[in-house]
Amino acid sequence: MDGDGALLRLTPQDDVAVALRRVAEGAGLAVAGGPQGARVREAIDSGHKVAVRDIAAGQPVRKFGQIIGWATEAIPAGAHVHVHNCAMGAHESADAIGTDYRPTEMVPAAERAQFLGFRRADGRAGTRNMIALCATVNCAATVVRYIADAVERSGMLDDYPEIDGIVALGHDTGCGLTPGPGLENLERVLWGHATHPNVCAALFVGLGCEVMQIARLAQKYEMGDRSRFHALTIQESGGTRRTVEAAVARIREMLPDLAGAQRQAVPASELVVALQCGGSDGYSGITANPALGRAADLVVAQGGTAILSETPEIYGAEHLLVRRAASEAVGRKLLDRIAWWEGYTARNDAEMNNNPSPGNKAGGLTTILEKSLGAAAKGGTTGLMDVLLYAERVKSRGFVFMDSPGYDPASVTGQIAAGANIVCFTTGRGSAFGSRPAPTLKLATNSALFEKMREDMDIDCGTIATGGTTVAQKGAEIFARILEVASGAETKSEALGYGGFEYVPWQIGATM
Amino acid sequence: MDGDGALLRLTPQDDVAVALRRVAEGAGLAVAGGPQGARVREAIDSGHKVAVRDIAAGQPVRKFGQIIGWATEAIPAGAHVHVHNCAMGAHESADAIGTDYRPTEMVPAAERAQFLGFRRADGRAGTRNMIALCATVNCAATVVRYIADAVERSGMLDDYPEIDGIVALGHDTGCGLTPGPGLENLERVLWGHATHPNVCAALFVGLGCEVMQIARLAQKYEMGDRSRFHALTIQESGGTRRTVEAAVARIREMLPDLAGAQRQAVPASELVVALQCGGSDGYSGITANPALGRAADLVVAQGGTAILSETPEIYGAEHLLVRRAASEAVGRKLLDRIAWWEGYTARNDAEMNNNPSPGNKAGGLTTILEKSLGAAAKGGTTGLMDVLLYAERVKSRGFVFMDSPGYDPASVTGQIAAGANIVCFTTGRGSAFGSRPAPTLKLATNSALFEKMREDMDIDCGTIATGGTTVAQKGAEIFARILEVASGAETKSEALGYGGFEYVPWQIGATM
Ligand SMILES: [Ca+2]
Ligand SMILES: [Ca+2]
Ligand SMILES: [Ca+2]
Ligand SMILES: [Ca+2]
Ligand SMILES: [Ca+2]
Repeated sequence: MDGDGALLRLTPQDDVAVALRRVAEGAGLAVAGGPQGARVREAIDSGHKVAVRDIAAGQPVRKFGQIIGWATEAIPAGAHVHVHNCAMGAHESADAIGTDYRPTEMVPAAERAQFLGFRRADGRAGTRNMIALCATVNCAATVVRYIADAVERSGMLDDYPEIDGIVALGHDTGCGLTPGPGLENLERVLWGHATHPNVCAALFVGLGCEVMQIARLAQKYEMGDRSRFHALTIQESGGTRRTVEAAVARIREMLPDLAGAQRQAVPASELVVALQCGGSDGYSGITANPALGRAADLVVAQGGTAILSETPEIYGAEHLLVRRAASEAVGRKLLDRIAWWEGYTARNDAEMNNNPSPGNKAGGLTTILEKSLGAAAKGGTTGLMDVLLYAERVKSRGFVFMDSPGYDPASVTGQIAAGANIVCFTTGRGSAFGSRPAPTLKLATNSALFEKMREDMDIDCGTIATGGTTVAQKGAEIFARILEVASGAETKSEALGYGGFEYVPWQIGATM
Repeated sequence: MDGDGALLRLTPQDDVAVALRRVAEGAGLAVAGGPQGARVREAIDSGHKVAVRDIAAGQPVRKFGQIIGWATEAIPAGAHVHVHNCAMGAHESADAIGTDYRPTEMVPAAERAQFLGFRRADGRAGTRNMIALCATVNCAATVVRYIADAVERSGMLDDYPEIDGIVALGHDTGCGLTPGPGLENLERVLWGHATHPNVCAALFVGLGCEVMQIARLAQKYEMGDRSRFHALTIQESGGTRRTVEAAVARIREMLPDLAGAQRQAVPASELVVALQCGGSDGYSGITANPALGRAADLVVAQGGTAILSETPEIYGAEHLLVRRAASEAVGRKLLDRIAWWEGYTARNDAEMNNNPSPGNKAGGLTTILEKSLGAAAKGGTTGLMDVLLYAERVKSRGFVFMDSPGYDPASVTGQIAAGANIVCFTTGRGSAFGSRPAPTLKLATNSALFEKMREDMDIDCGTIATGGTTVAQKGAEIFARILEVASGAETKSEALGYGGFEYVPWQIGATM
């Protein structure tokens, strides 16, 4: 931080600092490690960059500790760095799989963190212990809500404090679907939620005649512990009220088998953290996202898993992730997903944009690398260990990428289905999101938002810009909060009761 | 009906009867108007057809009072009529716009029916009087539910018995959308609900940063009576709880202005009836759908409007509707929608099927005409007065077609947005559907379903097959029930509280 706090250098490796508000010509350039007594050579608008040291022509320009472009001319300390003197190198767009991959330095086993979680038969660990009501089709969405309401009203869960509640997972699809990726998405979402480590028992509820059939699901996917799964249909049960009654009776019967589950010390390596952003602003890329990236690195160093998603938001800078790939196969999988998105958007008259927009440029973003690094910063710096389809079960530890839209509810629904047992969600403009059965922590990118939506926001990352907190400090704070929430502490969005309407399987393809 | 009730001839014009169960060779062919003493010449499986009179080679074969194919050889009374002796004529697939159009014989003004409805400033009439909470984006779905819950809990509506309730219209989209038909669908759905004749006041609730912006909506569409529309966003209001509080306060303020609305006698010409089916079975095409079609004809003869939809289900027989078109332009609009669907499904690796499937044929359906007539039978027989885009406001009286998928919640959501003030929904396998702010009447195609799901079903159309009720009698019964429900009688799905999760705008295109 410089003296008056208007310039922010994100990491000590950075060649540039970001102006947090307009900085006048001649202002001090007092960033740690920068040249003594240097001054800003021209006015720098808020969000724009200033060189904190001399950069020779042809040298890389670093922000976020990473290369965002190359100097196209000599840039003296104090000069504005933007499209006139900084650009992508031609070789930068080549896909060099794995060239930046480095094995992660792990925290020694003896020093590893723990949380209090629920151990499951399949070896995974839950951060919550919930009964899930999985509607196979929209026709059962009202019924699963009524079942949850009836169970809650009955008080039958009062004798089972080890059960954190019952979640009604109704959605808008499940029929009028044709075979293909949309149906497969929904199958993986349903199965991923029913078998989720935060779920102690699942009851599938169907209408009976829909495309999405419970029996086919059970056949296609490995069932695991069959005693955890139950199913009924409205048509067989004889209508709405009788289905609710039958379901409530079924749940009452299963409760004794669910009794006695206890939180126990579980290594942090069982954390599966979903990384997400929504309602981004100019601070996202410099405060909350890098801080969350730091927390993701801490999770990975503990042997845990962090899931980056939102494919459209890393588009154009996917080679940065590809270079971090642990193998040729992992890198290829990411490139395959990018190619799929190019087809998907072209088919649908939509556009993937691999250039900063005029608005982005006016705001100070120089290259697509800089733009996408702001989003990808949530993913930290460790090796990319796997690439997953939407809602595909996570099978590896470390940093992974799961394909999804940027649209929050669809993306998070896929991440939870993949096995995320906690979600960290950065927001700049303010998001009213929450999820179940895995809780969502909300990270504000700026303190004004944090103050304004205090009852919705868990952590203020704005202090990185205003209060002298470093990205590393904030990352450590987020990691500590992840452990608390994983151990049962309530998030703001849980306290507000979110999660009933934010379960949104990603729909692809024609609705017939 | 023949003596033992196993053979059903749907209309006196029909050349065939349908076997309601397997009929043995030699059984009596006692249908009214058929040849005396004739016998069934070969065993007829359930759902299959038998000739009730001699049909010469090349002559049309009629079922539903309409041509389903032509005799490819002489068919004697009592013979099985199926693919071996009945087929489409080549000329049948040509588009002859308007050739079957006949002006409807209207009920004389003095004899017209009335219902007790709510007159609106724009001239339309409501069958309910509700406050609508319209979420512009999924991010506000939980908040609109909380607002409705808080208003209900507060008891503030107790002093306003003229208000039928408050409906929370949350949905799964509104962001991650790109310009195009998907965004336009959502805009029309939002606007159609906010301005719906069953709605006395609408409060839009947004997050604040979504693609779907309230101001743009207001600019694009005619606002009508501005005092009916209110809006707020979660970001401006300062989070979840404050938004709920602000909304509840806003509703409390508007209540005095909404007081005093009264049901008054309104001509049945203000009825806008949505026709729908879901969970069809072998009885759909011969009981509930024709009976609903008869009711639609009665509505149209009163000067009212009936909306047929579910484009994929009329595919292959669209020329039957095109021939009923009141003008070249109306016929063209339907053909345009069909062409759009062919592109939509092709782009998405889905398929429009214009042949009866092997399963359909095994079940006794001979031609695509017969199959689609079973679905289109809901639309009755009057002239096709207009063709609408999904969720486009109905502007004409009479029988109209609105483009939509067959998928129930998406189709009905569009029909209500178009202005339907009551929905008639036929189901054979049993549907757990209901809607708000326009109520849904559920018509069972068979008595077994009606008995099994009695609390969900309003009318048993199975008596057409089993109890000697005619299609015309059942149509009159449905029409009478429409008037009662339009006047305020509660439907089964309203009593069960449906409508909170069945509001599903049709999503088209890529989710980004
Ligand atoms: Ca985002
Ligand atoms: Ca997002
Ligand atoms: Ca929904
Ligand atoms: Ca249908
Ligand atoms: Ca339907």
